[in-house]
Amino acid sequence: MDTHAPAYDINPENVTEKVIASFSMETPRGRKLLTSLVTHLHGFARENQLTHDEWAMAVGFLFRCGEISSAKRDEFMLLSDVLGLSSFVDMTDAPVGATEGSVLGPFYASDSPEVAVGADLRPTHHGAGLLVRGVVQDAEGQPIQGAAIDMWQTGENGLYATQDDHVPDSAFRCKMACNEDGRFTFVTVLPGPYMVPDDGPVGELLRAGGRTAWRPAHFHFLIMAPGFRSITTEIFFEGDRYLGTDAVFGVRKSLIVAPHREGDRDIIDLVFRLAAAG
Amino acid sequence: MDTHAPAYDINPENVTEKVIASFSMETPRGRKLLTSLVTHLHGFARENQLTHDEWAMAVGFLFRCGEISSAKRDEFMLLSDVLGLSSFVDMTDAPVGATEGSVLGPFYASDSPEVAVGADLRPTHHGAGLLVRGVVQDAEGQPIQGAAIDMWQTGENGLYATQDDHVPDSAFRCKMACNEDGRFTFVTVLPGPYMVPDDGPVGELLRAGGRTAWRPAHFHFLIMAPGFRSITTEIFFEGDRYLGTDAVFGVRKSLIVAPHREGDRDIIDLVFRLAAAG
Repeated sequence: MDTHAPAYDINPENVTEKVIASFSMETPRGRKLLTSLVTHLHGFARENQLTHDEWAMAVGFLFRCGEISSAKRDEFMLLSDVLGLSSFVDMTDAPVGATEGSVLGPFYASDSPEVAVGADLRPTHHGAGLLVRGVVQDAEGQPIQGAAIDMWQTGENGLYATQDDHVPDSAFRCKMACNEDGRFTFVTVLPGPYMVPDDGPVGELLRAGGRTAWRPAHFHFLIMAPGFRSITTEIFFEGDRYLGTDAVFGVRKSLIVAPHREGDRDIIDLVFRLAAAG
Repeated sequence: MDTHAPAYDINPENVTEKVIASFSMETPRGRKLLTSLVTHLHGFARENQLTHDEWAMAVGFLFRCGEISSAKRDEFMLLSDVLGLSSFVDMTDAPVGATEGSVLGPFYASDSPEVAVGADLRPTHHGAGLLVRGVVQDAEGQPIQGAAIDMWQTGENGLYATQDDHVPDSAFRCKMACNEDGRFTFVTVLPGPYMVPDDGPVGELLRAGGRTAWRPAHFHFLIMAPGFRSITTEIFFEGDRYLGTDAVFGVRKSLIVAPHREGDRDIIDLVFRLAAAG
């Protein structure tokens, strides 16, 4: 196929090669990704004999994803999540020996309050609450010095603080430097299950596919330490009715825990393992 | 592979099937498209061992496409255009016997002024201008009664009127009902070449790929008639330096014309053919 002929000699048989040939990416990786992207994109259209109307609907779908996105909402991340792409990459680009990763989700906010070990993250501190105790270790199980966590969760009602007018935005999330022995603790409540935002194009897709928008209840954790590869993960709870149908495919067996009772409070013990960087 | 096992038993080998199984599309066409989409999307990630950073860059790219899009700018359409997907669908979903289609592009505005045959579309009517004469025919070459055109073009400076503060928004575009013999004429200027908007994510992609953002000069036409399938197409001009490197792969040999001179003015004769609907 002569990809050097003028671009207006294109036809359905040579257009994929023409488009690929029009790019001269600087790196072999860039070329590989670009070539693969165009091949899959055209392959999708070719194999399905995609109609003009269907194509216009797809482009319009992405446009509407952009319209509903904002600093607080990323409909494209959500789309990647419900199509299992986020989980796919979480699983395949995972550091060996580390805790399994899970989706970042669209609710991560980088401005959580920095609090000390032991902090109570509830907006009103009545009752003993749920004590979360954790340790950050290396791949051999040794505690890591200088580790830190970034945690965000919903309240029992399934709302993040930023969504709930009745609690301050800073509730149920924190950044925390761990103790020298890699340990952290905080007091909170069990989060509630919730639905991913389904009032946008991704919600339409879920409904068209007869799928649920519910996610099982979970904590989000970002775990980091100097010299180690950060992980983004989630913690789920035994018995949650949505464990098997998570809208974003984020559940992993190794990330499901069960609280136990000690005296007057419920306790969750967590162990996170990080792999060395580089 | 057991796709009915709980979703948290997913791993890189079964996740694609799990995601596909989570959808129950109402129509066979919906199921086919969805299955193909997820297969290609995961296939892209799998074949390239897509890293978390690359995935995040891709999701961020789409988010930024949304940020820069507006009622007057569709960065997703532009992305489809520069990746040749729009042209692919234009070519493969083309009605038999009709004029070749070409990209709609991001500058179509549905509110062009309705004018009579013979209208002068220039903002200032000095000089004879360029006379465009056309006829809308059926696939057998018979004129179609009740045909109409929707035309938009840049001025000689390569700017659409909506981009050019010096001309009213209504210049260089029109909706026109053809005469009973399918004929239309209007007076205008030759459009100029221009660059697709390259100040957004798609511009970054073009630069990363060493590609030009230039398009050859062109008229856009939407041609429609009751009982016929509408076409979206473009008309290009012989000798244009950008014919062979159109950033959006819109040029077709059959859509290139050459003005000829009659008396004191330049004339372009156009023939559009429509295929019967259904």
